[in-house]
Amino acid sequence: MKYFIGVDLGGTNIAVGLVNEDGKILAKKSIPTNIEQGCNSIMENILKLCSDVCEIYGTSIDKTEKIGIGIPGTVSQKTGMVMYSCNLPLEKVNVREIISQKCNRSVTILNDADAAAYGEYIAADSKAESFICITLGTGIGAGIIINNKIYNGFNGAGAEIGHITLIKDGIQCSCGRNGCWEKYASASALVSQTKEAIKRNPDSIMAKYKNIDGKTAFQAAKKDDLTAKEVLRKYIEYVAEGLVNVVNIFQPEQLVIGGGISREGEPFVSKVREFVYKYDYNRYMNKTKISVATLFNDAGIIGAALY
Amino acid sequence: MKYFIGVDLGGTNIAVGLVNEDGKILAKKSIPTNIEQGCNSIMENILKLCSDVCEIYGTSIDKTEKIGIGIPGTVSQKTGMVMYSCNLPLEKVNVREIISQKCNRSVTILNDADAAAYGEYIAADSKAESFICITLGTGIGAGIIINNKIYNGFNGAGAEIGHITLIKDGIQCSCGRNGCWEKYASASALVSQTKEAIKRNPDSIMAKYKNIDGKTAFQAAKKDDLTAKEVLRKYIEYVAEGLVNVVNIFQPEQLVIGGGISREGEPFVSKVREFVYKYDYNRYMNKTKISVATLFNDAGIIGAALY
Repeated sequence: MKYFIGVDLGGTNIAVGLVNEDGKILAKKSIPTNIEQGCNSIMENILKLCSDVCEIYGTSIDKTEKIGIGIPGTVSQKTGMVMYSCNLPLEKVNVREIISQKCNRSVTILNDADAAAYGEYIAADSKAESFICITLGTGIGAGIIINNKIYNGFNGAGAEIGHITLIKDGIQCSCGRNGCWEKYASASALVSQTKEAIKRNPDSIMAKYKNIDGKTAFQAAKKDDLTAKEVLRKYIEYVAEGLVNVVNIFQPEQLVIGGGISREGEPFVSKVREFVYKYDYNRYMNKTKISVATLFNDAGIIGAALY
Repeated sequence: MKYFIGVDLGGTNIAVGLVNEDGKILAKKSIPTNIEQGCNSIMENILKLCSDVCEIYGTSIDKTEKIGIGIPGTVSQKTGMVMYSCNLPLEKVNVREIISQKCNRSVTILNDADAAAYGEYIAADSKAESFICITLGTGIGAGIIINNKIYNGFNGAGAEIGHITLIKDGIQCSCGRNGCWEKYASASALVSQTKEAIKRNPDSIMAKYKNIDGKTAFQAAKKDDLTAKEVLRKYIEYVAEGLVNVVNIFQPEQLVIGGGISREGEPFVSKVREFVYKYDYNRYMNKTKISVATLFNDAGIIGAALY
């Protein structure tokens, strides 16, 4: 059996796993990223965690095939350089070189959304020639896999599907434009929509909830709260309209929905699927298979390890 | 030298060309499609034109390598069947089988926008690993070429980039949704926008024009007509907003703009390019090369012949 190490380097936590060739995590450990301690400290922590997960399983780094690192930002797979990361102090840092020199292992780096998509692709045991994973989280992440390879453009900056317009001149987005899909269909957007609806409808049972998060409207809707139901009706439409765009462009064989919202599972996805199948530009051919992600937080580790 | 036959089967005309392996048209002929005469007549006319172009050049069909046919609709490359065509009486017709049996040549069929994109790809002598051609015509056509192969999804129905949302709940589209990009950025959309502007501003010099078409606003703007300039400012924004979406998703190495509007050339494209480079989600990596199509009407013939 061959062993691989996958690193999911996030703005909040560094999670590392020892993964076998079947995509199973054998040992896992995570610690806070502590951005303020800077780049060198992050690199040291990654190396320490890599050693730790090997030790937990009773092996050592030099017996692993390689280390894969998923990073939130734009990375150059050719040079191993992180070109830009909005959450981490890694701009123009050659992460591949630093890590591989210190542990004498082959290292690959890739974008974290790409890594997560690849993890879901492995987990789905998908033979799909085209596979897209859309993550509804703080923003909308996306990974595109065509013929078993991650597609992210000639410069590695592509697959920013969250930043396609849903409503031109709509809500301002951090990317410099207005009306991007993620301003309407991310988990954060749902939270905003829920809060606004509570303000407009103080009689909603949600007005009594202490914390409003991505689950609030789903919970209240199950109790037949009309405000919550209306929030969800609209939110599902936002999600599905964007997915129709994705399907019209790619007609992927398989589309997987991940991120916190996807934990609502099939009751949520079935409504999205119904909308997409009704409005996609395809009346005559087979339809894209649309399903829920299965790995959640482990997707990034497994994808980074095995890509 | 090897010879190929390319067929551009449109709702109005059938255009056929004899093409050499360098993508040069050696002989060309076109006749009206005469849809009302039905499928058999169209097939016979295609075969006749194939013979004719060979004869014009002094060769014969059996000395050609193959016949490629671009068709407006959804085609199955695997079976050779036209699954659906909104303009032609070819639903569920196996065009490949019919033509190849009658002339004993290898036949390939493909979507017409894909054929045109491939033609432009050949003409650009592009080594681009990702190449997208967007055609601003009656609608918006698109062809995606990744690693030298046309990408159109697992079912052949993809690359419908004209049918991604620009304005949710906007202008009604024939696809069943509202607010699709092509309702704002196609040549037809520009004509509508021009006509509406003239109604609102009867003092515009365009009010005196007999025929209003896609060129009208460009011509009047050159004469400093303020209404025309405002129409174009808005139209260019519509085109560019959609192209930012395309770039954010694909980050293609090269993006070519074709269709009637692209005859306005570099003065038009430079404004589009400026907008895209300002708003695309890429501050740190190389930018997509954006240029004007070069083949126009011949793109479909050349692409179909050589794919």
